[in-house]
Amino acid sequence: MTPQPQSPTRPSPKIPVAILGATGSVGQRFVSLLADHPWFEITALMASERSAGRTYAEATRWLQASPLPPAVAAMPVAAAGPDVEPRLVFSALDASVAGPLESDLARRGHLVVTNTRNHRLDADVALLVPEVNAHHLELTRRRLCDGGAIVANPNCSTIGLVMALAPLAQAFGIDQVNVVTLQAISGAGYPGVASLEIMDNVIPFISGEEEKMESESRKVLGSLGDDGLIFADLTVSAQCNRVSVVDGHLECVSVSLRRPASAADIRAAWDDFRGEPQHFELPSAPRRPIHYVDGDTWPQPRLHRDTERGMAVVVGRLRPCPILDHKFVLLVHNTLRGAAGGAILCAELAVAKGLLGESG
Amino acid sequence: MTPQPQSPTRPSPKIPVAILGATGSVGQRFVSLLADHPWFEITALMASERSAGRTYAEATRWLQASPLPPAVAAMPVAAAGPDVEPRLVFSALDASVAGPLESDLARRGHLVVTNTRNHRLDADVALLVPEVNAHHLELTRRRLCDGGAIVANPNCSTIGLVMALAPLAQAFGIDQVNVVTLQAISGAGYPGVASLEIMDNVIPFISGEEEKMESESRKVLGSLGDDGLIFADLTVSAQCNRVSVVDGHLECVSVSLRRPASAADIRAAWDDFRGEPQHFELPSAPRRPIHYVDGDTWPQPRLHRDTERGMAVVVGRLRPCPILDHKFVLLVHNTLRGAAGGAILCAELAVAKGLLGESG
Amino acid sequence: MTPQPQSPTRPSPKIPVAILGATGSVGQRFVSLLADHPWFEITALMASERSAGRTYAEATRWLQASPLPPAVAAMPVAAAGPDVEPRLVFSALDASVAGPLESDLARRGHLVVTNTRNHRLDADVALLVPEVNAHHLELTRRRLCDGGAIVANPNCSTIGLVMALAPLAQAFGIDQVNVVTLQAISGAGYPGVASLEIMDNVIPFISGEEEKMESESRKVLGSLGDDGLIFADLTVSAQCNRVSVVDGHLECVSVSLRRPASAADIRAAWDDFRGEPQHFELPSAPRRPIHYVDGDTWPQPRLHRDTERGMAVVVGRLRPCPILDHKFVLLVHNTLRGAAGGAILCAELAVAKGLLGESG
Amino acid sequence: MTPQPQSPTRPSPKIPVAILGATGSVGQRFVSLLADHPWFEITALMASERSAGRTYAEATRWLQASPLPPAVAAMPVAAAGPDVEPRLVFSALDASVAGPLESDLARRGHLVVTNTRNHRLDADVALLVPEVNAHHLELTRRRLCDGGAIVANPNCSTIGLVMALAPLAQAFGIDQVNVVTLQAISGAGYPGVASLEIMDNVIPFISGEEEKMESESRKVLGSLGDDGLIFADLTVSAQCNRVSVVDGHLECVSVSLRRPASAADIRAAWDDFRGEPQHFELPSAPRRPIHYVDGDTWPQPRLHRDTERGMAVVVGRLRPCPILDHKFVLLVHNTLRGAAGGAILCAELAVAKGLLGESG
Repeated sequence: MTPQPQSPTRPSPKIPVAILGATGSVGQRFVSLLADHPWFEITALMASERSAGRTYAEATRWLQASPLPPAVAAMPVAAAGPDVEPRLVFSALDASVAGPLESDLARRGHLVVTNTRNHRLDADVALLVPEVNAHHLELTRRRLCDGGAIVANPNCSTIGLVMALAPLAQAFGIDQVNVVTLQAISGAGYPGVASLEIMDNVIPFISGEEEKMESESRKVLGSLGDDGLIFADLTVSAQCNRVSVVDGHLECVSVSLRRPASAADIRAAWDDFRGEPQHFELPSAPRRPIHYVDGDTWPQPRLHRDTERGMAVVVGRLRPCPILDHKFVLLVHNTLRGAAGGAILCAELAVAKGLLGESG
Repeated sequence: MTPQPQSPTRPSPKIPVAILGATGSVGQRFVSLLADHPWFEITALMASERSAGRTYAEATRWLQASPLPPAVAAMPVAAAGPDVEPRLVFSALDASVAGPLESDLARRGHLVVTNTRNHRLDADVALLVPEVNAHHLELTRRRLCDGGAIVANPNCSTIGLVMALAPLAQAFGIDQVNVVTLQAISGAGYPGVASLEIMDNVIPFISGEEEKMESESRKVLGSLGDDGLIFADLTVSAQCNRVSVVDGHLECVSVSLRRPASAADIRAAWDDFRGEPQHFELPSAPRRPIHYVDGDTWPQPRLHRDTERGMAVVVGRLRPCPILDHKFVLLVHNTLRGAAGGAILCAELAVAKGLLGESG
Repeated sequence: MTPQPQSPTRPSPKIPVAILGATGSVGQRFVSLLADHPWFEITALMASERSAGRTYAEATRWLQASPLPPAVAAMPVAAAGPDVEPRLVFSALDASVAGPLESDLARRGHLVVTNTRNHRLDADVALLVPEVNAHHLELTRRRLCDGGAIVANPNCSTIGLVMALAPLAQAFGIDQVNVVTLQAISGAGYPGVASLEIMDNVIPFISGEEEKMESESRKVLGSLGDDGLIFADLTVSAQCNRVSVVDGHLECVSVSLRRPASAADIRAAWDDFRGEPQHFELPSAPRRPIHYVDGDTWPQPRLHRDTERGMAVVVGRLRPCPILDHKFVLLVHNTLRGAAGGAILCAELAVAKGLLGESG
Repeated sequence: MTPQPQSPTRPSPKIPVAILGATGSVGQRFVSLLADHPWFEITALMASERSAGRTYAEATRWLQASPLPPAVAAMPVAAAGPDVEPRLVFSALDASVAGPLESDLARRGHLVVTNTRNHRLDADVALLVPEVNAHHLELTRRRLCDGGAIVANPNCSTIGLVMALAPLAQAFGIDQVNVVTLQAISGAGYPGVASLEIMDNVIPFISGEEEKMESESRKVLGSLGDDGLIFADLTVSAQCNRVSVVDGHLECVSVSLRRPASAADIRAAWDDFRGEPQHFELPSAPRRPIHYVDGDTWPQPRLHRDTERGMAVVVGRLRPCPILDHKFVLLVHNTLRGAAGGAILCAELAVAKGLLGESG
């Protein structure tokens, strides 16, 4: 574990943050990652009525391999509602309740960085992958004039896909993308996938996932004009499978480009890819967003998911496709880069770009 | 387990058969399936030098869930070589030794039905999926004039794919096929995949598998003329993954057709599909080669791999593809239909069509 | 799959039966096993309010590898309650609702054969493992004078244990038993164990299981006097673990005997063990209740759980224990012999012994 | 990951070390742990003939989740033999070749710290668990007068067991220990356990493991007199199972004590347990050797194996045993504390106690 680069934009004192949906699977990842965060400090934990009034240790069934941070263990959990102290709010709420509450918090002046799907396609919500479309935060800046805003983290599979596609889209243009995913069980939260369903098995379906990948990737790769955001003009076809892996979504991708590119061109585009998180040296940013690995049988979830603390996308097996132009395999850590870690990076970028104002 | 249809072509007495490579993973499946076969009787078991002179029970590490058939357990194992008694020989030899020995046996007058890859693309070898290209046995008939011949079973993933494609190829013509596989560990034999490599993991690579799927499927779907076999004019792009499943290869397929077809047209083509194995009511033939299942999350390896004793291909999730025309998911039991069971069906078809002559 | 022995006691016409809790995991096994049962015929399916009014196919999430029997698929599901038509009732109800309803049904004259834990230790309930304590059905006969009765199937781990212990208890007497279990996920039903909890993991705890094994085994091995049942005078210490196995509980046992016995004595006791199910040739009875396997690394869940259609207990690795007298490993199929199959065998025995009367 | 305590005994410059058997599974762990070690510096890598002359990156199939340290990747691998430069040698050789070579190296003046089983029970070899029997290094000191010596790491399961037993042995005396293990696949190295053998399965046998646990634990807990080492007077009965877990051996233990102890007494003995590694603040020492966890369902391999960088033993579920006195569950990380990490701690202790002399 290498030391994190010292960012010039580091705020002092730390910015207080709330976590909504703190007891679930993604909420636990927020807690893990924010417990020692150099910029942010957890000051409020909120979850369902059932958890309210208990300490976090009592209210959660901790399922992370790292121990529950003692300082957080003793914090009280409140019922999620519109009265939230910190201006910056991370949401890992269940989609069944997130919609109106997140809107309400934005109206009340909060900056809500959410991992939930409800507002991802809203016209005034930036669907943010900081390396890819940092300029979409302009949507958020406009909205913040009225007080609060929502910034959304895309679906975990989409994040991995658009990070690998963005350098190609910038350099060569993308026409068509066929993607088949092999997704980890942690993506379904807890209790999530029953062991009787997935052991010695594959489930070739994840509710809503294919639609999300096909639409969200076009928004993230879209362009921002005066009239708002225009979805990218490319076609995505997705097939999504659940497999017996704890963490790490693998994706088999074929892509056709608008301008010809050799394998070397593509490798160079990936190797050289950097974004604002690298420019600002944000605490959660990977040094290199894309790691290409040369092993014949790579990338693999268990071997590569923790690359750069789970914040980099790992790509391999680039080769010609007899139908589209190129084929490759990518891996994204679904609960780090693809969920809590990605959302925290969004918040860090918002802070670095001054969206939270002087006081944070 | 339903009773097997009584075939009118049932030979009497039983036809003696040899199994080459009898102690390996596919060899064990041959033993299981042939132990009570209505037409065939195992009279010779052959394996590597190391096993020679031992009983089958001593020579093999039995890894099947069904018990080792007692009659076979006590049979002696001989070293695989050119002196084989039965005319009909099943080969599950390791590819490193199969090539010359199978050729030699064919020259000596044997009909070698092989599951090994070595001769699959030979010009005078039928690459046979009995429901799909029974007419390719004409290649074998021509060759048998000189004595023996080799009939090859395609690669396990290819068998599942071409069975699902054949009805579409016949009815609508096929232009392009994109397939991503999620393959079971039993496909790699024993010891095969190390548990340290596959547990909590996916391996996005299987040596030679993508090439096999891309070429073999074109041969199986090819047409036979006076000058021999012409590969089908379609493009296949394959990506192959190993996943934590014991048995059953799942394949995510997109296909573009030469003539438009609705989902209902395709469903009808699959439902109505029958071939010579069904016509002859061969002992190992499934009543219906293709089973379409309607569940949202189906087919699944653990739930559906044993459909019709593992000899049917199970298809589901037919839906439009934004890039090619249609997407669907298929499942094939890789060691039954995809290996030993498929090879036995080939032999049954050869017998039913009289290729072994009066005496079997 | 060998043909089932023709029992002399075979009733004609078939005896109608109801299944309570038919949609759960054990309920599904009851449906599978009773769909083609030679004596019994499913005429009523009952489950929770939520399922009432739907067909069985609609109400259940079928998770068995064998297909849902078509005749049952179309049957209506009723809400579980005291109005049940058939006199013979199989119960796979959730323990939270089983207690009063099963008592009520017994009062109304039904013979309730239950897999649920609620009444197992009741004084007038036979806790039945047919090979082991068929004579305990005398408890049921006494109770049936007043109309109905409950017969209970022990806990799945207990069934495997007492089957292996009974021959030793009869021949040598048993003093102490130390048992550590490695139990399959199917024992927890559906959804049961979350995949996030068990993948790449062991859970060294199963709620209430150790207590059940320690008490139930003493009741099953107990003796019946005029004043009722006296628990066997032996001490059991159990530690229970959940492991990543679909079906099949493995148990590591050490035992001290009251009279010395050699390994050969013990092997003979197991090999010769037969009970009333074998005497009556009951349809679900294994030909041999105990199969001793000689392989160094046996028994194993995936290789041996289906021995005699999952109704036999498989034992291996008998060797001296430095602390107690002997050590061995046993395997029991937890949802077949350990649940639905065991309960059906109990009902078959009750019929064979005339407890249901002339009319069944 | 907390900072490692600064030891007062820290040598400067670093001590050069060789790794024998560097390309295997345990060898890779040595490489990982020594790449940034504050005291030791890898200067020689040795493996089989096959690897000789290649770089480490070429010669090894890296299967660790952390990346291969770049500095090591480029180092050449030599054939393991008696000519070794560094005086301190770590051995992860295969047991089939380790015996004579390790003896030869000791004769030539090397201090060989080995993870291999060959010399564990030799009279002049300390079988060392640094927290438990640091005083056994006196055996090594005597032997070093003549030049070199071998220090052996016990078997991985034994290490976990004796660490949990040692505080009880010291405080109350131990009479009998019954232990059933559930061991991870990484314990068998690579390729080790075939996935076809362990998926959806348990293997209730590990060759030689039960004998090792029963004898090695008595040596580690033994006492050292003028005439050498006297094995502890206690009886251990072990049953060993392989389960589907990547890392982390779980052990279900029952123990009878020589002097009565309450649960609170035992908890206190574990909580207060410290040894020389803690006294010397050795770089690889856990702050607390034993962590008792209170969760009903704890310890679990996936949740707790990394406690204190995998160097602590985690214990839970202490409760009365109806046969022996107490039962509990323990967890040890088999490739960290139980193999490479444990061996490195042995070497650190030897250095801290001055066994390598002034120059290291």
